[in-house]
Amino acid sequence: MDGSGEKLRVGVIGATGYGGMELVRLLLGHPHVSLTYVTSETFQGQPLGEVLPHFRGFTNLTLHSFDPTYATNSRDLLFLAWQPGRAMEVAPELLKHGVRIIDLSADYRLKSADLYERVYKQRHASPKLLAEAAYGIPELWGDAVKTARVVACPGCYPTGALLGLAPLLSEGVIDPADVIVNAASGVSGAGRSKFELGFHFPEMDENYRPYNVTGHRHRPEIEQQMTALCGEEARIVFAPHLVPMARGELCTVYCRLTRPITPEEAQGAFERFYSGRPFVQVLPQGQLPATKNVLGTNMCHLGVAVDTHANRVIVMSAVDNLVRGTAGQAVQNMNLMFGFPETAGLMLPGQYP
Amino acid sequence: MDGSGEKLRVGVIGATGYGGMELVRLLLGHPHVSLTYVTSETFQGQPLGEVLPHFRGFTNLTLHSFDPTYATNSRDLLFLAWQPGRAMEVAPELLKHGVRIIDLSADYRLKSADLYERVYKQRHASPKLLAEAAYGIPELWGDAVKTARVVACPGCYPTGALLGLAPLLSEGVIDPADVIVNAASGVSGAGRSKFELGFHFPEMDENYRPYNVTGHRHRPEIEQQMTALCGEEARIVFAPHLVPMARGELCTVYCRLTRPITPEEAQGAFERFYSGRPFVQVLPQGQLPATKNVLGTNMCHLGVAVDTHANRVIVMSAVDNLVRGTAGQAVQNMNLMFGFPETAGLMLPGQYP
Amino acid sequence: MDGSGEKLRVGVIGATGYGGMELVRLLLGHPHVSLTYVTSETFQGQPLGEVLPHFRGFTNLTLHSFDPTYATNSRDLLFLAWQPGRAMEVAPELLKHGVRIIDLSADYRLKSADLYERVYKQRHASPKLLAEAAYGIPELWGDAVKTARVVACPGCYPTGALLGLAPLLSEGVIDPADVIVNAASGVSGAGRSKFELGFHFPEMDENYRPYNVTGHRHRPEIEQQMTALCGEEARIVFAPHLVPMARGELCTVYCRLTRPITPEEAQGAFERFYSGRPFVQVLPQGQLPATKNVLGTNMCHLGVAVDTHANRVIVMSAVDNLVRGTAGQAVQNMNLMFGFPETAGLMLPGQYP
Amino acid sequence: MDGSGEKLRVGVIGATGYGGMELVRLLLGHPHVSLTYVTSETFQGQPLGEVLPHFRGFTNLTLHSFDPTYATNSRDLLFLAWQPGRAMEVAPELLKHGVRIIDLSADYRLKSADLYERVYKQRHASPKLLAEAAYGIPELWGDAVKTARVVACPGCYPTGALLGLAPLLSEGVIDPADVIVNAASGVSGAGRSKFELGFHFPEMDENYRPYNVTGHRHRPEIEQQMTALCGEEARIVFAPHLVPMARGELCTVYCRLTRPITPEEAQGAFERFYSGRPFVQVLPQGQLPATKNVLGTNMCHLGVAVDTHANRVIVMSAVDNLVRGTAGQAVQNMNLMFGFPETAGLMLPGQYP
Repeated sequence: MDGSGEKLRVGVIGATGYGGMELVRLLLGHPHVSLTYVTSETFQGQPLGEVLPHFRGFTNLTLHSFDPTYATNSRDLLFLAWQPGRAMEVAPELLKHGVRIIDLSADYRLKSADLYERVYKQRHASPKLLAEAAYGIPELWGDAVKTARVVACPGCYPTGALLGLAPLLSEGVIDPADVIVNAASGVSGAGRSKFELGFHFPEMDENYRPYNVTGHRHRPEIEQQMTALCGEEARIVFAPHLVPMARGELCTVYCRLTRPITPEEAQGAFERFYSGRPFVQVLPQGQLPATKNVLGTNMCHLGVAVDTHANRVIVMSAVDNLVRGTAGQAVQNMNLMFGFPETAGLMLPGQYP
Repeated sequence: MDGSGEKLRVGVIGATGYGGMELVRLLLGHPHVSLTYVTSETFQGQPLGEVLPHFRGFTNLTLHSFDPTYATNSRDLLFLAWQPGRAMEVAPELLKHGVRIIDLSADYRLKSADLYERVYKQRHASPKLLAEAAYGIPELWGDAVKTARVVACPGCYPTGALLGLAPLLSEGVIDPADVIVNAASGVSGAGRSKFELGFHFPEMDENYRPYNVTGHRHRPEIEQQMTALCGEEARIVFAPHLVPMARGELCTVYCRLTRPITPEEAQGAFERFYSGRPFVQVLPQGQLPATKNVLGTNMCHLGVAVDTHANRVIVMSAVDNLVRGTAGQAVQNMNLMFGFPETAGLMLPGQYP
Repeated sequence: MDGSGEKLRVGVIGATGYGGMELVRLLLGHPHVSLTYVTSETFQGQPLGEVLPHFRGFTNLTLHSFDPTYATNSRDLLFLAWQPGRAMEVAPELLKHGVRIIDLSADYRLKSADLYERVYKQRHASPKLLAEAAYGIPELWGDAVKTARVVACPGCYPTGALLGLAPLLSEGVIDPADVIVNAASGVSGAGRSKFELGFHFPEMDENYRPYNVTGHRHRPEIEQQMTALCGEEARIVFAPHLVPMARGELCTVYCRLTRPITPEEAQGAFERFYSGRPFVQVLPQGQLPATKNVLGTNMCHLGVAVDTHANRVIVMSAVDNLVRGTAGQAVQNMNLMFGFPETAGLMLPGQYP
Repeated sequence: MDGSGEKLRVGVIGATGYGGMELVRLLLGHPHVSLTYVTSETFQGQPLGEVLPHFRGFTNLTLHSFDPTYATNSRDLLFLAWQPGRAMEVAPELLKHGVRIIDLSADYRLKSADLYERVYKQRHASPKLLAEAAYGIPELWGDAVKTARVVACPGCYPTGALLGLAPLLSEGVIDPADVIVNAASGVSGAGRSKFELGFHFPEMDENYRPYNVTGHRHRPEIEQQMTALCGEEARIVFAPHLVPMARGELCTVYCRLTRPITPEEAQGAFERFYSGRPFVQVLPQGQLPATKNVLGTNMCHLGVAVDTHANRVIVMSAVDNLVRGTAGQAVQNMNLMFGFPETAGLMLPGQYP
């Protein structure tokens, strides 16, 4: 991949879930990539455009069953877009064949096998890779991403929360042990195969509801990465909510200030921290993000407000859970891993409204 | 109104806004009330069922222009469902004619004229009534409501937040100076006359967004009432968000514990506090509220979770912003003021789904 | 049931589907009814308010398993709100015990066992009852309903279409063999137990789609009842569509005129036909119905437009699929069957917006 | 524009309406175009990315006031995305300066000044251009588009209806004087500046409603173009409806067969007619379109069903009203006008779900 015109050969393993199909969408438009392999156990043998009619006419790809040998043959990179628990089983073998991996599941996000076991209630199948895997938020850990064989691509909640927290942790003005992350997500965050009663249209429509407010698996992951950023133990409340919309995610993050700062200082800290970064937009002071403004794109919109009355700073962070929170960030990571411009294939605005 | 069969004669002043029309809906079904006067400056002279087609066939009421003399003649109670700022101009005169008043605007919610002026940026027109007015959350200040001439009926955010906070403040287990209220509301909360770009269907649809996260006028009101409950100075963050749905409101309230409590203790405190109260449902431990479950009713659903990891208790409180947050609570207050059963006219389940 | 104060004792068989739960809602508020039996095979033994949290605090009913002996003991009327195919198995036995039946399934809607078999691909289990059962649209076949032991309560599409067609068929100005019914329904019409991918929130949200445009089972039913109204063979196109909303149904019916009529004549025909009928509102000329205006109520809103250019009359008919299209019409039928005022328990306006 | 690498210089006049902003989105990603001029009277002088936050970081364009001299200077093509009535005033002058024009308003869609005056209730300001303007549906009138100075780009309803009707008219199997077009559109079809009560989120949410069922301006336009296709007088019913979604449009078209055809014949006629056309997808027999499957793309999905019972053929046609119904079709027309591949800039799949 030296820019000589040859394209990167990639595969999407698990192409009919919401994350996988969004990867396909983005990769089909990527100038330096040739998407040559898409898999689905359920729909193997069928054209992608028949299984997913929104792809009709845009691609002739056919879905295959996953086969590790075939998958790695003449492939440079595999995106693993499976349900949790499967990537860790096959990754070691895939790596042996020389491909690199971007995993969109939770399998390589936690750094310790012990923590993984406590959180996911099962033993990790390839614990040696945990330390090696890069945590794929390019603005924060891009250097590690560049050279990694395995990138653990985080989901929407950690991505939104950490992008919002990083400038404040870096500045040292908040207490990492007193942070509240109130998160809200569109329903596609629940995945495509899990169509239970709670996600049945008549039940979820006109409904807003919290879930799993004390035990969500993203909490230890966010804390781990906060500590990586500031060197101190982090301790957060993480409370997710479902919003009656298909896509979009917004974290409202409440942090206790360890010293008074002005709104201008806070604004300045964010603008400096993300200066020159194409996919993080710090909104002008006083302007707040809205999920609709980032739909379909890899952008993260950040708004920051200082609440002097309560001695807190409030950060609001909006992303598209399926782009910046999944497939777009994976492509951004790929760009870093293979020396493409960071923005390659990701510079199209989203549909609005 | 002695139960002899004669009905209470009431009027709704401002009947074509969302709060006013919901009042009409509930009062038409109330067994002890005769709704004899509905007003609208814009539509005076027109049958209510023509202006608002969902009332066609349910009532023959015609809209009138507001006239204080006519309004008070043969009327026992007036609901003032105007935009803020108008009730305080006319209330003194109305009271002289012997009617009692339930005001659904913000005019009588704050107890001090100074605070009112700081918050609403104008002088209060009838400051003497501020101290007299009862703050109308029946479960918390029902005794004052019973005898009040003027009841200030609070909106959805303070109602939801305060019903969620009261048991904890009463129990003395949280720090009232370290409370975060993350609130989310359906768009009807913005009113019916304010159809600006942000509420245009294509812009608000599939959108979730915070607004006014440090300067909302409900903050000082909630703090004032928290202090009334616990005797200490309260200091909260209040951050409201808009959700793409017509109705419903949910507060997620994060409180710092001043001493450790178990989930069972927390649950017990809530159940004791609201024991026997028909309109507050403390959900079984582990179950969380959803806005859809309270739509159309005067119910408040409460869920409580103890986050031992972060030493916080999380209370989630769901109400229908137009019923428990506006018109239903007004009717509940009326029931108390006139000695009707608290549940009169309010015991119909809502439409689901 | 002679108005002496004793209440009608009724049961809802299948109380946790959308139709059943709406029946419970309406029956709890009915002045002449005592709801004493609600069943669910899945949730037997559990309080209704725990299974369906929107009922919390409104009722103490507990769900039972269905037992024909218990069901008929001390019961005057049973509402059967099962999936299709079950009512026809048990109805004969239930009738023997002296109860009357309102069936909300399709089992007794077609008049001939042959037609039933062609349409539903199975033999009818109690064909003798087919002729006896009254087709329960009170404005059109109310006399038969009054004395029927079994009322077949039609669904939303036939109800909306037939209420819209009846005045024109009665007037003899349209060709019953050239009618197009374009129908659109909220997703609750698909039921509560059928949560397949197509109704998964992210898939149905922001989506509008036709289904089953030539083979829907409601077509022969509508034609049968059109013929009952006009004495001629009817032949229609019936094309249903799903709309991303929970409730509401609107038929746009296109009829070929057999002689020219003016808009005023058409309007007059509708107004005469439904004069004095509380649950059909013929909108003023030029005004068109909207599903939102009938939500939660038993109303049918009708708008009529004459298209002189194309020699057609267009009737638009809006109902709430779960009230006028299911539970509300069932209650209206019950009122007729037992001599209550037609409007008893049904005169509350719906929630708006 | 000879493929030598120089880019086409284009401007979007009226860039902050829904059509205009969608044009900007597509043109920013077009490989052969340089978008150098975007206008807005309201927001002139402001960066596009500040006025429309979903463009933040994707473009540095600044909004200008419209100036005909500046607009035409060094510009090859102007997209006019104004409200109706303005393009016809300025087009003659713009043409004098040598630019070509794609007009997205209704100004040049009707071929006769008389008809224009009857339909739009005003005189046409540049009637001589009416005959010259090409009607821009590339699959149907692409040859005229290629050489036109002015292309009248039709809206979503005519585009969807005509793409659905063309194969049948061409085949001569339907009566063009007996066609019913039942159309349904997302609310963005109403535009961005028209935020009246009917489009206020709480009023339009959970609502489905017909409007203007006999007098819509698209009727004569569709009939004019049907006649252009088949040589006979067309006479249709055109009844539009609003659906509670932001985007998407679906026409259900009912046509009377003049001779019996089998479903296979109908299917074959459609497949032949659109063979090789990248932006019309004839779905496999038995499969029906859904608006969600075309969102964000220039695709038109067609489903066809033969209703032998009623002797009609039903065509269902789904488009994104802002892409195939507005901006995408404009770009497709541009591609034809300037010799680019028809698909240039339009081959990205849409966001799903």
